[in-house]
Amino acid sequence: MAKKKILVLNGPNLNLLGKRQPEIYGTLTLAQIEERTRELAKELKVEIDFRQSNSEGELITWIQEAATKFAAIVINPAAYTHTSLALRDAISAVGIATVEIHISNIHKREPFRHHSFIAEVAVGQIAGFGVDSYLLGLRAAADLIQE
Amino acid sequence: MAKKKILVLNGPNLNLLGKRQPEIYGTLTLAQIEERTRELAKELKVEIDFRQSNSEGELITWIQEAATKFAAIVINPAAYTHTSLALRDAISAVGIATVEIHISNIHKREPFRHHSFIAEVAVGQIAGFGVDSYLLGLRAAADLIQE
Amino acid sequence: MAKKKILVLNGPNLNLLGKRQPEIYGTLTLAQIEERTRELAKELKVEIDFRQSNSEGELITWIQEAATKFAAIVINPAAYTHTSLALRDAISAVGIATVEIHISNIHKREPFRHHSFIAEVAVGQIAGFGVDSYLLGLRAAADLIQE
Amino acid sequence: MAKKKILVLNGPNLNLLGKRQPEIYGTLTLAQIEERTRELAKELKVEIDFRQSNSEGELITWIQEAATKFAAIVINPAAYTHTSLALRDAISAVGIATVEIHISNIHKREPFRHHSFIAEVAVGQIAGFGVDSYLLGLRAAADLIQE
Amino acid sequence: MAKKKILVLNGPNLNLLGKRQPEIYGTLTLAQIEERTRELAKELKVEIDFRQSNSEGELITWIQEAATKFAAIVINPAAYTHTSLALRDAISAVGIATVEIHISNIHKREPFRHHSFIAEVAVGQIAGFGVDSYLLGLRAAADLIQE
Amino acid sequence: MAKKKILVLNGPNLNLLGKRQPEIYGTLTLAQIEERTRELAKELKVEIDFRQSNSEGELITWIQEAATKFAAIVINPAAYTHTSLALRDAISAVGIATVEIHISNIHKREPFRHHSFIAEVAVGQIAGFGVDSYLLGLRAAADLIQE
Amino acid sequence: MAKKKILVLNGPNLNLLGKRQPEIYGTLTLAQIEERTRELAKELKVEIDFRQSNSEGELITWIQEAATKFAAIVINPAAYTHTSLALRDAISAVGIATVEIHISNIHKREPFRHHSFIAEVAVGQIAGFGVDSYLLGLRAAADLIQE
Amino acid sequence: MAKKKILVLNGPNLNLLGKRQPEIYGTLTLAQIEERTRELAKELKVEIDFRQSNSEGELITWIQEAATKFAAIVINPAAYTHTSLALRDAISAVGIATVEIHISNIHKREPFRHHSFIAEVAVGQIAGFGVDSYLLGLRAAADLIQE
Amino acid sequence: MAKKKILVLNGPNLNLLGKRQPEIYGTLTLAQIEERTRELAKELKVEIDFRQSNSEGELITWIQEAATKFAAIVINPAAYTHTSLALRDAISAVGIATVEIHISNIHKREPFRHHSFIAEVAVGQIAGFGVDSYLLGLRAAADLIQE
Amino acid sequence: MAKKKILVLNGPNLNLLGKRQPEIYGTLTLAQIEERTRELAKELKVEIDFRQSNSEGELITWIQEAATKFAAIVINPAAYTHTSLALRDAISAVGIATVEIHISNIHKREPFRHHSFIAEVAVGQIAGFGVDSYLLGLRAAADLIQE
Amino acid sequence: MAKKKILVLNGPNLNLLGKRQPEIYGTLTLAQIEERTRELAKELKVEIDFRQSNSEGELITWIQEAATKFAAIVINPAAYTHTSLALRDAISAVGIATVEIHISNIHKREPFRHHSFIAEVAVGQIAGFGVDSYLLGLRAAADLIQE
Amino acid sequence: MAKKKILVLNGPNLNLLGKRQPEIYGTLTLAQIEERTRELAKELKVEIDFRQSNSEGELITWIQEAATKFAAIVINPAAYTHTSLALRDAISAVGIATVEIHISNIHKREPFRHHSFIAEVAVGQIAGFGVDSYLLGLRAAADLIQE
Repeated sequence: MAKKKILVLNGPNLNLLGKRQPEIYGTLTLAQIEERTRELAKELKVEIDFRQSNSEGELITWIQEAATKFAAIVINPAAYTHTSLALRDAISAVGIATVEIHISNIHKREPFRHHSFIAEVAVGQIAGFGVDSYLLGLRAAADLIQE
Repeated sequence: MAKKKILVLNGPNLNLLGKRQPEIYGTLTLAQIEERTRELAKELKVEIDFRQSNSEGELITWIQEAATKFAAIVINPAAYTHTSLALRDAISAVGIATVEIHISNIHKREPFRHHSFIAEVAVGQIAGFGVDSYLLGLRAAADLIQE
Repeated sequence: MAKKKILVLNGPNLNLLGKRQPEIYGTLTLAQIEERTRELAKELKVEIDFRQSNSEGELITWIQEAATKFAAIVINPAAYTHTSLALRDAISAVGIATVEIHISNIHKREPFRHHSFIAEVAVGQIAGFGVDSYLLGLRAAADLIQE
Repeated sequence: MAKKKILVLNGPNLNLLGKRQPEIYGTLTLAQIEERTRELAKELKVEIDFRQSNSEGELITWIQEAATKFAAIVINPAAYTHTSLALRDAISAVGIATVEIHISNIHKREPFRHHSFIAEVAVGQIAGFGVDSYLLGLRAAADLIQE
Repeated sequence: MAKKKILVLNGPNLNLLGKRQPEIYGTLTLAQIEERTRELAKELKVEIDFRQSNSEGELITWIQEAATKFAAIVINPAAYTHTSLALRDAISAVGIATVEIHISNIHKREPFRHHSFIAEVAVGQIAGFGVDSYLLGLRAAADLIQE
Repeated sequence: MAKKKILVLNGPNLNLLGKRQPEIYGTLTLAQIEERTRELAKELKVEIDFRQSNSEGELITWIQEAATKFAAIVINPAAYTHTSLALRDAISAVGIATVEIHISNIHKREPFRHHSFIAEVAVGQIAGFGVDSYLLGLRAAADLIQE
Repeated sequence: MAKKKILVLNGPNLNLLGKRQPEIYGTLTLAQIEERTRELAKELKVEIDFRQSNSEGELITWIQEAATKFAAIVINPAAYTHTSLALRDAISAVGIATVEIHISNIHKREPFRHHSFIAEVAVGQIAGFGVDSYLLGLRAAADLIQE
Repeated sequence: MAKKKILVLNGPNLNLLGKRQPEIYGTLTLAQIEERTRELAKELKVEIDFRQSNSEGELITWIQEAATKFAAIVINPAAYTHTSLALRDAISAVGIATVEIHISNIHKREPFRHHSFIAEVAVGQIAGFGVDSYLLGLRAAADLIQE
Repeated sequence: MAKKKILVLNGPNLNLLGKRQPEIYGTLTLAQIEERTRELAKELKVEIDFRQSNSEGELITWIQEAATKFAAIVINPAAYTHTSLALRDAISAVGIATVEIHISNIHKREPFRHHSFIAEVAVGQIAGFGVDSYLLGLRAAADLIQE
Repeated sequence: MAKKKILVLNGPNLNLLGKRQPEIYGTLTLAQIEERTRELAKELKVEIDFRQSNSEGELITWIQEAATKFAAIVINPAAYTHTSLALRDAISAVGIATVEIHISNIHKREPFRHHSFIAEVAVGQIAGFGVDSYLLGLRAAADLIQE
Repeated sequence: MAKKKILVLNGPNLNLLGKRQPEIYGTLTLAQIEERTRELAKELKVEIDFRQSNSEGELITWIQEAATKFAAIVINPAAYTHTSLALRDAISAVGIATVEIHISNIHKREPFRHHSFIAEVAVGQIAGFGVDSYLLGLRAAADLIQE
Repeated sequence: MAKKKILVLNGPNLNLLGKRQPEIYGTLTLAQIEERTRELAKELKVEIDFRQSNSEGELITWIQEAATKFAAIVINPAAYTHTSLALRDAISAVGIATVEIHISNIHKREPFRHHSFIAEVAVGQIAGFGVDSYLLGLRAAADLIQE
């Protein structure tokens, strides 16, 4: 039987990970995070597609296209978490089970990072565990599609 | 005499119409809505250009280019209604008469859908009539450019 | 077959139309608007009853009485739009499909004119097209009762 | 000794009771509620006058006239609960002990139904018990005028 | 030459003056206030029409009718000061110079009495001087129509 | 047939009743209120269990235990009304019909006493009638379990 | 018998009157306003002391010193109306009857001009009548000290 | 080498899990959740202590005592998440790495459940995955103490 | 003559003093603070009872019991300062002169620590002086009961 | 060794103490308060300079000059507590340990007296103890400069 | 031809520059800043008058007097930026082109420093460049008066 | 030695400059502004790269790429100033000294233009000087990279 596929999406500026504010975001690059996420995917017997974009429109289009190809989405929407109603509507429209993840604990940062438009359409949220947020998010997504 | 031209713009996720939350947005696809809008355009003796984009930047650029080609705009800005000050500034800058439309009645949905940045620069707003919002919006626009 | 009937209701101060702030409300009197609305009604093959009152209580009573006589309501609640919860409860109670219209685009006027108690119980809202708001509203109502 | 008199007032749209949103307001008509309230009045040996009006002005006038005729008021102000400062001033001016009642539990409905202008001048408030709100309200009023 | 006419309007519950909360509103009845206002009118050589209504709709209608008969309005809108957008729209529509008066100093009472919808369309506001508010208001109005 | 049982719960500081701020809470002690509530219970043919605690945790535990023993709850949550989400969740979880009562009319006291977390999960609320709030609350509860 | 004395105080920037924004403040200079106020004082048989200061501290000191010399204060606090709690405390401390006046109708200007710290300790407020606000204010003060 | 110990704390009403609102909280009892958490603990080679209390004070005391015995805390604070500053201060004082978990996605429930006092002192937050929230939380905690 | 007695109450987490965040709360343990408070009590010739609890209910019960035994209360309510309306009601009910103290200056910490429910029923508040807050508070209380 | 010097500053209207609202501020004059403060200063072996000004600018200048002459400041900023950011910046700039005092308990008065700009730069705050606030404030300051 | 004159105004506490919080305001004294500003003035061929005051009233008077002597104002209003409506009214009244400057970037400091009353009447605002804010401000002013 | 390079970025709709609302934005086209900025760059001996985009994503990518090529950024973010958290995060991540400029004085326009997400990560802000904002901004940036 074909492996189930999970789309792992990364929002704006996450391509700078590892080079940027390590006291908030840690020292791993996005490539290293992808690698560790792939290792776990193998262990969990799921297939992943790992992408990043700075463009709100492109992220929306990827989510729309996911409808027929992926069983779940793990998304770190970065700054769009707090400002993109369009991203939210895309997730809500395609109806794929979505796990929202954040490297830092957004609830203890600036007030404008506490509210998430994505949370309202996601199954759940994982925030604050650094690269572990990706791994925990992948496990959560894998569990969701096995149920 | 050449027919007057009206630009009909569709914001993010409207390409999913008919496949998405039919209890809110109805069962017609965007192509079907375009067809019905075209029929009315013929009846009203105006020409329309019907487009959709998920990208805020692209929508802005289309509005900017409309300045010399179109007599009016009918726009369903979808999620950008509530978050895009840039879209508003584009409409305000080009100075073309603009009719804002919405498939659902945004004023009875979540509070964050009640405020429209576009309303502040549009001639008027039509919301809640499903595909009819397009047809009523086209009539309103056609009337505006005949005055 | 008897024509379907639509009640067109006008709230406080609309009897002053045409004499009052023409830069906001245009130069047509309410009688002229009624006339143009009647012409369209004829074209759409519906019958209309066109009324105005300055009294919140009278408007409520008219709505209550509409239950057994009208298939739809087109209402321009004027100032009561923003302050009358009782009007809203009347519409909600009788359960007749209601179209809310406004001559000016309330969403670009003073902040206290942005919220509508009526919108929460109306099918949809049309605002900003002058007398055209009545004509578009009648079309919308006629469509609703044909569905 | 003559029986003490209690005025039972009903605000806008309560004349629709029993026909309107039964999941919120129950299935009894206002006439049936009046009947049950009269039965209890007999048992409590008080006389009642039971009225309804959609007009804020009429309700105010009734309250003003009550000053010399009634020992207490039981009022279900319906929508005017939340918007009528004038009703509040009337109660405050006549100085008759007033019991505020509501069929539904206004504190668990929409936020704009949580605040009551009447509560600030009433002895107490009873909300959420359907027709029982009338009966409990009458008992409360009867007790107040016996003290 | 005919005397100029000034309409003196009184809002809800002011018919209770003198019987009601004298610590806030003083001990004069509305009839006594009318008498003293008439005396001053004679002195100022203006004619007045002095009216009171509990009905928002009636007050609106009186203001509308004033357009052709009165040179100025002195209004004590009482509770409608804070809730009636319709009253405000009536004054704004007829365009007669209007002086807003209050017996008590509304700015030191409950917060919901601080905001006045009428102030936004009145020439000026006089509050807190008891019956003197009427006399000062009449002087202000008489001055306005002599300018 | 065994009598139906109703749990009457009293929150923090209610054990001080009669000794404390009589201008707000009256002169009866909690024991006297219990006595009068028991007399009415006898008349209504229900059995009551009457308890008071200053501890949020203990009140929660009593509510949880009520699930299998009581047909209804009458609760005067006192200060916890406004601060205890946990109490609310307990009531919501056990699913027993609950009547919320208050000795004083909380809606005319300090603003922080206007909101009730309990109201959102209670059938109804009775406030402002002194000891009568207990008696009316018991009647309301007794009626609820007979339906 | 010695004439009663009234202190007429003018806050910051009022020394610029007549030179400044005539569309808001009129064309009379402060000296001309003083002259017309003195004429009325003569007519009302009161004595006035007319002063202006840009300094909050100086205005406070003048009010403190007024305690033993003046029977009433007429104050146009200008910008300090909205920001000076210290001015308010001075008026409240000396306990002299104070009439607050404003040349423009502060209630229809920018929102930060709607709230008055002075209103909370003044007998009443007169706003919007240009130089007439001084004359009406003086009459009001003269009446207050005759009572 | 001795296994590291993790304290798993459960706040008010979680002892009702499985019996209560299954559409929000699922059908597993707290005992079943404990069992599945123990199984994972074994797999992760950590020891756990699993407790529940309805009492804020008791939860605080447990956290205080944890200082010398546990390497990490996994806490589902339930209703206290949103109201207990004292719980927050306890976690902040003991300085043990803490993982906050929630069965439901608190960010898509009632607004008063969006803010977490605990988040401000926790390493991270996991919400919305049902019993999986416990398992993911335990993994996160186990990872934290291995670093 | 017997010495007057003062109850010194300590709220949640204060038993951790000296071990916890010394940059905010200093290095003295609660036992050391108690010792220094006792020394001053001796000097001031008052007797003290010094207690701490993590339980809101227990603190309330102690305050209730204080009514007949203590002449004053010095309370450091810690986190309950900001969340416990029940504690406030207890102090208000027993009517004993109460001095509120805080080790840190709560007015310069997080916004949610600025408001105190206790302040509204306490004679005064002392905040920010470390252990000195206890000594100053005891002096204030001793002075209050000598007056 | 020379005694350490403490500057005791009094803000606007405090020169009226004893003559003004004794129910809030007590019956002692500022001179009497100074005398009692001087007595305590002698006992504590510190020297004080005791001043009052109604002028925000003068108070700022005094604070600036204090930098080289005083070891601590005790300030009762009166109304400037709540409005003077400039006073706050002065204290923050000179960097002298400052104790904020208030005669009344500002936290139980009008809401606009709850926030203190000074608290954010002061070591601590003492409020509500009448003249004792000065004595406790002096002790607190004397202790601070001995540490 | 005479050089154009520019008034450079400095608000409260700026006389402490260089001695005060250098991490926010830099290490230059106000005298050094004046010197560098004078050098640039020479280069730009304008004359400057450079002043500082802690007194709001004095700053207002200087602005008023500027009307006939200066072509432009460069003002660093310091703390009065956020609290002085009177300063704003002075600038608005004299109608001289005004450039607002700040040493620090007020928009990234405490929220109460984000709003500027001065901005609403200034041509533009320059903030965050240390002494350069003065130099850039002078250039801006010089350009304005050359236009 | 190679000249230092400065990136000058222009946000959405700035390509319309000169054609659009000249009363707000002036009559120069973006090309003319670029030309004048280049002239000054030559004078200041820095090199500039001048770009415009309507796309948020593209602006983010340009900022990310700037990290290794530019010493400073001058950015006019236009509408994205107020809505783009992603732009802010990009600037914060690359850590290049950034000067924020605006043609109009955003602090005196609509309230939603007062807050800037960019200000929080920029060195400083210059607003309101038309094309001069570019020239002043370039000077500020040139100074920053010479320090």
